Amino acid sequence: MNYYSAPIARLIEEFSKLPGIGRKTAQRLAFYVISLSEEDAVKLSRAIIEAKKSIRYCNICTNLTDQDTCLICRDKKRDQSVICVVEDPRDVVAMERTKEFKGFYHVLHGAISPLDGIGPDDIRIKELLVRLQGDNVKEVILATNPNIEGEATAMYVTRLLKPLGIKVTRIAHGIPVGGDLEYADEVTLAKALEGRREL
Amino acid sequence: MNYYSAPIARLIEEFSKLPGIGRKTAQRLAFYVISLSEEDAVKLSRAIIEAKKSIRYCNICTNLTDQDTCLICRDKKRDQSVICVVEDPRDVVAMERTKEFKGFYHVLHGAISPLDGIGPDDIRIKELLVRLQGDNVKEVILATNPNIEGEATAMYVTRLLKPLGIKVTRIAHGIPVGGDLEYADEVTLAKALEGRREL
Repeated sequence: MNYYSAPIARLIEEFSKLPGIGRKTAQRLAFYVISLSEEDAVKLSRAIIEAKKSIRYCNICTNLTDQDTCLICRDKKRDQSVICVVEDPRDVVAMERTKEFKGFYHVLHGAISPLDGIGPDDIRIKELLVRLQGDNVKEVILATNPNIEGEATAMYVTRLLKPLGIKVTRIAHGIPVGGDLEYADEVTLAKALEGRREL
Repeated sequence: MNYYSAPIARLIEEFSKLPGIGRKTAQRLAFYVISLSEEDAVKLSRAIIEAKKSIRYCNICTNLTDQDTCLICRDKKRDQSVICVVEDPRDVVAMERTKEFKGFYHVLHGAISPLDGIGPDDIRIKELLVRLQGDNVKEVILATNPNIEGEATAMYVTRLLKPLGIKVTRIAHGIPVGGDLEYADEVTLAKALEGRREL
C-alpha cells in the first residue's frame, strides 16, 4: 500500500471498506475517481455527505426520508385502512414498483433473529403498535422476507395484533422461499400480494 | 427511482456511474453509506475530493503523486542507469511489489492503439525521450502489457531508442500473453523481469 501516494492509498482504503468491494475493485474505483473531472468528483463526494446528513427516519412509518414525514405518509390519496409491514426501505421501493398497493407502509429495519442477537425490541415493532391505536387500520399485510427470520417476525407480529381485532395477512409464497424481497420482479411480487391469506 | 427520496436517489445515481457498479450494487452502497456513522461518511467523501484535488503527474516519470516529484523519483538510492517503462500507475505498484527492480520508472498512461485512435503523441513518450537526453541511462526496460497494444508500443519505443545507443529490453513472456500486468503475481512478474532480453 505504501507504493501509492497517500491520498490514493487513503481513497483505496475507504473504497475497500464498502460492502462487496475488494482491494482490486477499490483500486479501480480510486483510479476512476482520479480520472474524473473535478466537477464530477465533487458531485460524488457531495452526494455521499448529503445523503448521510439529510436522511432520517419518517416519524410515521420509519422509512428513510429527507423530511420529517415521508412522501408516502403525506399522500392523502392513499388507503388509510391498510399498512404493509416490510423489513427494509428497499422493500418499500420494490412494493411501489408493483403499482398494486395503495395503502401505507411500516418499515421494521430488520427481522427478529435470535442467532444474530436481534430481538423484537431491536426492530421497529413498537412504532407499528402506536400507529394501530386509532381504529383507522383494518388490515396489516406482513411482507417480511420469506426466510426464517422474516417468518419468525411475521409470527411474532401476528400474535401481537390478533388480540387487537385487526386482520393480519401474509403475502403469498409466490416469491421463492429463501429468496429476498428486494430482488423479486414486479409480476411475482404483485402475485404474492394478490394471493395473500389471513393468518 | 422517484420511489427514493432525492438525496438517496442522487447517491445511487452517482455510485452507478462508477465502473463495474450496476444499479443493485449502487443501491447497496448507498444504503451502506446511510448506515455509516457521520464521521465515516465524511472520511469517504473527503478521501474522494482530496485524491482528486491533490493528485497530479510527477514532473519526471509522469506517475501519479501528490507532490511535484514522486517519492520514487526523489529516492537517491535507486539505480539511475535503468528506466522501466509501464503503461499505468498501477503497473508501477505491481513492479514495486516484486522488490526486484531498483531503477526508475516512466509511466506512459496508455499504449498505442490505432483502433481506439490512440497514437504515439497521445501517450507520454515525448517525456521519456527528454529524460534520455543525458547519458545516465544505460538501459530502458519495456514493461508494457503483453497484448497487441503493449507490443506495438514496445516496438515503437524500441525503434526510437535504438539509434540513441541505449540498450532496450523487454520483460520476458512469463506473464500469460493476453494478460494484464496489474493482475500478475509477484513471482511471475519477478521471473518476467529476470528473463528480459535485448530487442
